[in-house]
Amino acid sequence: MRIVLDAMGSDQHPAPDVAGAVMAAREWGDEITLVGREELVRPELAKHKTQGLPITVCHAPELIEMHEHTEAVKRKRESSIRVGMRMVRDGQADAFVSAGNTTAVLASAIFDLGRIRGVKRPALATIYPVASRRVLLLDNGATADCKPEYMIQFARMGVAYAEQVWGIPNPRLGLVSNGEEPDKGNMLVRDTYAALSQTGLNFVGNVEPKEITRDAADVVLTDGFTGNVMVKTTEAIASFLFRHLRRELTGGTLNKVGLVLLVPGLIAMLPGLALLSPALRRTARKLDYAEYGGALLMGVDGVVVVGHGRSNAKAVKNAIRQAREALRGGVLDVIRASVGRAASQEADPA
Amino acid sequence: MRIVLDAMGSDQHPAPDVAGAVMAAREWGDEITLVGREELVRPELAKHKTQGLPITVCHAPELIEMHEHTEAVKRKRESSIRVGMRMVRDGQADAFVSAGNTTAVLASAIFDLGRIRGVKRPALATIYPVASRRVLLLDNGATADCKPEYMIQFARMGVAYAEQVWGIPNPRLGLVSNGEEPDKGNMLVRDTYAALSQTGLNFVGNVEPKEITRDAADVVLTDGFTGNVMVKTTEAIASFLFRHLRRELTGGTLNKVGLVLLVPGLIAMLPGLALLSPALRRTARKLDYAEYGGALLMGVDGVVVVGHGRSNAKAVKNAIRQAREALRGGVLDVIRASVGRAASQEADPA
Repeated sequence: MRIVLDAMGSDQHPAPDVAGAVMAAREWGDEITLVGREELVRPELAKHKTQGLPITVCHAPELIEMHEHTEAVKRKRESSIRVGMRMVRDGQADAFVSAGNTTAVLASAIFDLGRIRGVKRPALATIYPVASRRVLLLDNGATADCKPEYMIQFARMGVAYAEQVWGIPNPRLGLVSNGEEPDKGNMLVRDTYAALSQTGLNFVGNVEPKEITRDAADVVLTDGFTGNVMVKTTEAIASFLFRHLRRELTGGTLNKVGLVLLVPGLIAMLPGLALLSPALRRTARKLDYAEYGGALLMGVDGVVVVGHGRSNAKAVKNAIRQAREALRGGVLDVIRASVGRAASQEADPA
Repeated sequence: MRIVLDAMGSDQHPAPDVAGAVMAAREWGDEITLVGREELVRPELAKHKTQGLPITVCHAPELIEMHEHTEAVKRKRESSIRVGMRMVRDGQADAFVSAGNTTAVLASAIFDLGRIRGVKRPALATIYPVASRRVLLLDNGATADCKPEYMIQFARMGVAYAEQVWGIPNPRLGLVSNGEEPDKGNMLVRDTYAALSQTGLNFVGNVEPKEITRDAADVVLTDGFTGNVMVKTTEAIASFLFRHLRRELTGGTLNKVGLVLLVPGLIAMLPGLALLSPALRRTARKLDYAEYGGALLMGVDGVVVVGHGRSNAKAVKNAIRQAREALRGGVLDVIRASVGRAASQEADPA
């Protein structure tokens, strides 16, 4: 597969981006094009052993900063994001991966790739980390203001992906709400609930966050605003708890109960702490975005994966893995078929 | 203070409700009226030592179940919720506390107490648990479909409460969004942002969940749908993590690494685990709704606190404490003044 990677994407670019690309090329043998400022990317690449790896560099002189908006995207035609996106459009690459400014990647995807015929709005699909199975959540922020008709399309795209790319038979679709009953939710959720019941999808009804963590659905549907707040709340709480727990383990108790009383206990505890670490780490890993890489932008006419700005090399590598998985599953055809089938059903309800 | 407690409120009613009331009466000497089915409440009360405590029972023959809707509230005039609410309306009590069906409490508050003059919509104000300071979040689910004008009132009510009841000088107000920049958010958030900037409140801008856990605001403003999903996500993630951690600590590691290798380590770990428990428990406590009791319904013409359905006795007691705190701070006058002042400013912008 031919992947274009935005070398100017992550907050610490280009180091994690280049390192992640090298890891991916080494592991899977993909052809990777690093797009970005040549004078920064080449020296970074030279720090790695890349002999024999199919990595090339494509110069893109402009840079879209994290805080920049759609106007900058329009203007900066020679930025790494837009140059990379055009490579996908022109068939020189199969997928574009960036840990850069999400709004900019989204805008460029719309400008340069366009939407798949029939798709009303794009959606970012993410793996929701706090569950035992693999749960697909969409929209994680592409479309903040939704209508029921957009939500229904997101549902179809998400379900088709879970079924045909992940291989989950008849995926269960849940709608995020503030209660399980059909009359719970805001107006958008109530209207979407009614419309979903007519689709023939395996709609299990409203789901609350608690049920999502208990695997009540394979695909979790929500508007881009709520979805993004939910995913960010999840990350924030996990990070707060681990920080807090670590602090308590390493100092908090001591201050409160007194040193003298605890020293024997602490000494006995040391081997226990060493044992504990892998358990803590395993729990933390379930919440580490680096394990998942990024979000797949569904509905645009090309495979685009957006990573976390704080991505490290491993996160970049895993974002590339997500693009590979989507490509291998023929995601564009899957989405085309799901949206097309629905459109023809609507046109001919017989 | 005279508190009416819905003895039929919690999922396990009347046991936790009655026990919580007894704890509160013992600790603070409040006059508490238990409202509910006499034949259930009296025997429950008899299990406690209540001699000398100012606890009375008021019979209410009907019961609103957890799944029942507004129509049931209209019909069941003799339910514990409606009888209790009328006691507040008629001046026989100062506050109503229930761990029952939130929708029903809300509906009854609107029917029986009405809104404070000038208030457009009520809001549920909750302590957001994952932060080092005390953070007030509203709306936690009273008004799922909001307009900017409702949000502005929620902001004024929340800020007035934090300032005058909690004593925080010039409380910092943050607006929940999916990004910090003023152009982030859905349409409601963007419009509310613009309107808040004109209010003279100490508005610190958009806040993401991460910043909330890092004490970026004293009052966190959001619509009732998003707020409820946020709070429920917070509870779900915390509960998932603690469950997961406990499982890993007590069994998971063993299965994976092998018993033989770990037995010496585990034996050494035992005293450590005993030490660990208080730390884990302290972290868990920060997330335990029982510590906070419930949410204060702001904007109705009476003091109403709604507890969690899963409340235990301690949670019921703490919900009563919240009602006491609101009463002592003169919450109704505080809200009247904040809404009234704003209305007169709007009428006379000079």
